Amino acid sequence: MKNDLFLRALRGEKVERPPVWMMRQAGRYLPDYMKLREKYSFFERVETPELTTEITVMPVHQVGVDAAIIFSDILVIPQALEVEVQMIPGTGPVIPDPIRTKEQVEAIPEIDVKDRLHYVMDALRLTKQELNDAVPLIGFAGSPWTVFCYMVEGKGSKTFDKAKAFCYTQPEAAHLLLEKITHATIAYLKEKVASGADAIQIFDSWGGLLSPVDYEIFSLRYIREIVEAIHHLAPVIVFGKGCWFALEEMAQMPVSALGIDWTISPHMAREFTQYHVTLQGNFDPARLLSPIPEIKKLARQMVDNFGKYRYVANLGHGILPNIPVAHAKAFVEAIKEYG
Amino acid sequence: MKNDLFLRALRGEKVERPPVWMMRQAGRYLPDYMKLREKYSFFERVETPELTTEITVMPVHQVGVDAAIIFSDILVIPQALEVEVQMIPGTGPVIPDPIRTKEQVEAIPEIDVKDRLHYVMDALRLTKQELNDAVPLIGFAGSPWTVFCYMVEGKGSKTFDKAKAFCYTQPEAAHLLLEKITHATIAYLKEKVASGADAIQIFDSWGGLLSPVDYEIFSLRYIREIVEAIHHLAPVIVFGKGCWFALEEMAQMPVSALGIDWTISPHMAREFTQYHVTLQGNFDPARLLSPIPEIKKLARQMVDNFGKYRYVANLGHGILPNIPVAHAKAFVEAIKEYG
Repeated sequence: MKNDLFLRALRGEKVERPPVWMMRQAGRYLPDYMKLREKYSFFERVETPELTTEITVMPVHQVGVDAAIIFSDILVIPQALEVEVQMIPGTGPVIPDPIRTKEQVEAIPEIDVKDRLHYVMDALRLTKQELNDAVPLIGFAGSPWTVFCYMVEGKGSKTFDKAKAFCYTQPEAAHLLLEKITHATIAYLKEKVASGADAIQIFDSWGGLLSPVDYEIFSLRYIREIVEAIHHLAPVIVFGKGCWFALEEMAQMPVSALGIDWTISPHMAREFTQYHVTLQGNFDPARLLSPIPEIKKLARQMVDNFGKYRYVANLGHGILPNIPVAHAKAFVEAIKEYG
Repeated sequence: MKNDLFLRALRGEKVERPPVWMMRQAGRYLPDYMKLREKYSFFERVETPELTTEITVMPVHQVGVDAAIIFSDILVIPQALEVEVQMIPGTGPVIPDPIRTKEQVEAIPEIDVKDRLHYVMDALRLTKQELNDAVPLIGFAGSPWTVFCYMVEGKGSKTFDKAKAFCYTQPEAAHLLLEKITHATIAYLKEKVASGADAIQIFDSWGGLLSPVDYEIFSLRYIREIVEAIHHLAPVIVFGKGCWFALEEMAQMPVSALGIDWTISPHMAREFTQYHVTLQGNFDPARLLSPIPEIKKLARQMVDNFGKYRYVANLGHGILPNIPVAHAKAFVEAIKEYG
């Protein structure tokens, strides 16, 4: 690997400067991505390895990040499980027939992930070739709870009350669904590593909607199961948005890093995790709207506060579509100039 | 006051059991409220003292809570400031001409709150009469930051990126608007106390969207200004949803209580606030969908964990529209049966 800063930071080794990448870095703020988006539907972009590769390497060349993350979506898992997912531009994902009964859960088949999601594996292999070991390639999946949220709610939501209601009124069916998602996700991530992913990130985007007690019951135990199944194959990063309350517990898992959002101070995050793990984050995505000198100042302060070691610079959530590319670059540059 | 449990808990006095009320307790889960909602528009309900009083006392009689909270909306402040607010059923509040420039902020007039919002004061006086000192009456306002979010974004949002962008790209104009809201809110709350409110709650519903550093800059300093201006007139409760990271700072203000949402454990909340203040919360509103025996068990555990003193039982956010009344009652009963 020509630039292995990211992998070294995940292993807790000394680095010249922290590595930097951005969640959703291959996304709507990039004009070249927008051109592809006009020409090809979401599923065409995700299911055509050549397009996926082109999108994945784009921010490496154009913004200069230290890691690539395969362009895909967490909802390929329900799709592989034969639950129809539609992507409606401007609305987001819609599941026309959401899961609401035990019978529906029981009807979800055992599947061969390698077969169903072969296009992801093809894209990983092609991207590895294209990257030619310039930077590491990250593979990802949603946490079982987060995937469950969409499968039950049927669409995006502020509060996912229908998903929570399903847990609280039909806990047995809920756990059966969570188990099915977990098993498919483990097979999927193993296959991703076999196809070239150098690290794995698990996104728990909706874990922060649960109380600490319910988080353990409905989310963390399934994340733990996944981490235990794959951590010996590749370094694992778990990002739980809004899950500050579980950081101490999460740091006990065999993860290499924990992602954190911008609502926790670096000091607090270190206090909860005690340098057992590398931390990744946590620049407020909306702060990339600030003038460039301010972005650079805030980015430097962020590294000052986390420290240079056991740290991966990133945003605290996905980059927003309305961020000027120059601002994204300024953020990356500030980290590269650090120290 | 016949039942002064709530005021005693706010003062930190010993109580037989914790008092209990629910945010949005006079709301859509009550069939009798729904009848009024079908007959009268939102503004008719808020601006007609007889209707406001009827709605405010409803949960005292029907659910048995230990405090009433005046039926109103945080957006009466922008309205009084001559910014048009529409309430669109199914969509929520819409501000057709949101604030996006310094000129718009400068054009916001100095107003006589007492004159503009006389209907709130009339409703408070009428409700006090109607309650006849059965339980205390809470008056409320949004935090300046939260009111600002709606005024700039123009509608509800998951992330209020436009409001944040306004802060980060036009900080001077943003602070001028926050100051104008703060001054109007102080005058408004003073008048509410003079009209009979026994306690004041400030709702910072969107504080949790800011980083800890930006929270101090754009939200907490204005809340502090309000608290300092009114705490000698009535006990003040500040509820910052998602603001766990600021609890330690907030407990240094002269507040009587801090509201907390369900994503923080009672243990952590006590650790951050160190019994300087009473805590109010924090049952997950979606957990009221659980079967009644489970609701009662979880409610008892909650009091066990907070302790009986310096505690006001409540939800961690507003009650959901789809909660059966019997479930809301079971929650209130579990607290009343405590100990």
